[in-house]
Amino acid sequence: MKYLVKKSILQVKPYVPGKPIEEVKREFGLKNVIKLASNENPYGPSPAVLQAIRQGAKHLNRYPDGDCFTLRQALSRDLKVNPQQLIFGNGSDEIIVLVVRAFIHPGDEVIIADPSFLVYNIASLIEGAKVKRVALKDFRYDLTQMKRQITAKTKIVFIGNPDNPAGTYIRQKEMEAFLKGLPSRVLVFVDEAYYEFVKANDYVNSLGLLKRYKNLIVTRTFSKLYGLAGLRIGYGIAHQPLIDILNRVREPFNVNTLAQMAALACLKNKAYYAKLAQKIEDQKKFLYKEFNRRGISFVESWTNFILVQTKNQAPKVAGQLCRQGVIVRDMSYWGLKKYIRVTVGTPQENLRLLNALEEIL
Amino acid sequence: MKYLVKKSILQVKPYVPGKPIEEVKREFGLKNVIKLASNENPYGPSPAVLQAIRQGAKHLNRYPDGDCFTLRQALSRDLKVNPQQLIFGNGSDEIIVLVVRAFIHPGDEVIIADPSFLVYNIASLIEGAKVKRVALKDFRYDLTQMKRQITAKTKIVFIGNPDNPAGTYIRQKEMEAFLKGLPSRVLVFVDEAYYEFVKANDYVNSLGLLKRYKNLIVTRTFSKLYGLAGLRIGYGIAHQPLIDILNRVREPFNVNTLAQMAALACLKNKAYYAKLAQKIEDQKKFLYKEFNRRGISFVESWTNFILVQTKNQAPKVAGQLCRQGVIVRDMSYWGLKKYIRVTVGTPQENLRLLNALEEIL
Repeated sequence: MKYLVKKSILQVKPYVPGKPIEEVKREFGLKNVIKLASNENPYGPSPAVLQAIRQGAKHLNRYPDGDCFTLRQALSRDLKVNPQQLIFGNGSDEIIVLVVRAFIHPGDEVIIADPSFLVYNIASLIEGAKVKRVALKDFRYDLTQMKRQITAKTKIVFIGNPDNPAGTYIRQKEMEAFLKGLPSRVLVFVDEAYYEFVKANDYVNSLGLLKRYKNLIVTRTFSKLYGLAGLRIGYGIAHQPLIDILNRVREPFNVNTLAQMAALACLKNKAYYAKLAQKIEDQKKFLYKEFNRRGISFVESWTNFILVQTKNQAPKVAGQLCRQGVIVRDMSYWGLKKYIRVTVGTPQENLRLLNALEEIL
Repeated sequence: MKYLVKKSILQVKPYVPGKPIEEVKREFGLKNVIKLASNENPYGPSPAVLQAIRQGAKHLNRYPDGDCFTLRQALSRDLKVNPQQLIFGNGSDEIIVLVVRAFIHPGDEVIIADPSFLVYNIASLIEGAKVKRVALKDFRYDLTQMKRQITAKTKIVFIGNPDNPAGTYIRQKEMEAFLKGLPSRVLVFVDEAYYEFVKANDYVNSLGLLKRYKNLIVTRTFSKLYGLAGLRIGYGIAHQPLIDILNRVREPFNVNTLAQMAALACLKNKAYYAKLAQKIEDQKKFLYKEFNRRGISFVESWTNFILVQTKNQAPKVAGQLCRQGVIVRDMSYWGLKKYIRVTVGTPQENLRLLNALEEIL
């Protein structure tokens, strides 16, 4: 079978997701396992979301609205963009795939940061792109160096803002300097999956920049703060001609009905999620304090996760935590051999993490 | 933007789905609209499915199990195949896309029937394939002619069994003759979306053929008889090396949690769905009888839909029905200028269709 397949695909190491709770329970015979590995919201969906799902479930024999009409209207009002500037995906990672499928010819170049979200690299390699990686500098994007890497063959620059796994963000001035004078044939993909967590006055105003740059696409998700990771829904915002092209590659019913209804319920309930974001922010601060007290180094984060430095090799530490029923992410796969990534959990989960770490370190 | 995009994509006419009920209500100011346009199950999900969704909804803040562990185990027992021979998709149409993405190099040839399910053509064209179409013969696949079209460049043959829109099926002997001597470098994609509706003793036993043919992939769906179209879940069955390749292209969390849980509930409740299939079969027979009584010609179908011949042009007839609140599919887009396709509905819906047709024809 292998001789038939596109060569680009065989070169790709598949994405390794965080272990599911059930899998760890099975593997280690544990009853009580917590997961701080996938940057999920530790709180379940809101009552309004549960209600929307109950409502929608009755009609699941019908195909979804392929156009996401109602959600599109609501979100376009919310963001103050034209409804036709939006595209919805089966998670925002699907938008990444749609962009590379639409625009990458084999041999085109893509620029990403190193380390950054794995899907930028995997999706680009599958389409036969040459991926250029630019190392982070003190865990921040080195946009000057990334801009220098642009050649006549460069098609896309992926910018996670804030990015995963570093958790740091790009400032408005840095982004403006980066975009200025950039050839319009280079697409700038700004992934704002953690947008709702960022508390920083100089964070990029990407919707403002969209008014000036037609080669920009911004994505956000309902998987993180909105707690709908299991339902799969994210979206992209760009100029209409770019969105029109992505719609040609999109499968007609890519976003399921319940995801559409649940996302709509989230948008109607902004105050609830603002409070949730604050709760997570407070817990992040609590973790910082406790890490400092214990002499544990970490990278300050503008998201709901923290890169934590370990004294021993990360696979060992992550393995030890796992056996104690605390799933975190071993960062050695990202080239960070002595780092784990922990998601900010509920107060109880965070205490359990701290206790487990104390035993190990 | 257009000069950046892959040329193959600009050539593709996007898929035109059946109009959603809400859209028709908005457009024509109607209160009571029925949809017989998308080959959906007219009955809502089973109580067990609704219960599974209620259960699963609480945990939607977590990413889905990317491996579909529990569902995979259950389905592999059910089908008596190895769990690693299965791949799950965001609808079975996603499996079509995974196959073309993995195997089509620009210029490769793909063979499809004409008319057949639109996604075979669209997905192949997006990847730059040359699509060869072989006309149906009396609304049935002409496998002899399709086999003759195979060249050294042929990569995939798509076979809908039964196919949409014709609704006819391929017999075991015909499929065996087709597969015999076929070069192993040609993938045979057998789409069995309507599998559960087929009442015919000589229908292809595709799982039996899978034991002999490593270049075969069979897909089925929970969107039709199982009534989960809105949740998006289907699956493919093939030899493990082929599945392994598709997994490299698959996004890690392509199937949402509720879809996995609902599908599992369906598998545990086979008797319920067998009864449902019989109910739809009985209503199909009722429609045949009423069509005959009114002198309306149609194509006998092994699915939950029927191709119906119209005296006037199909767009006109479909438009008239739509204004009466009955959504059917105008088949002129498929080259069948005087045909509409109607899905078998509930007894009340079918009566309403017959009454509306009577007024028009």
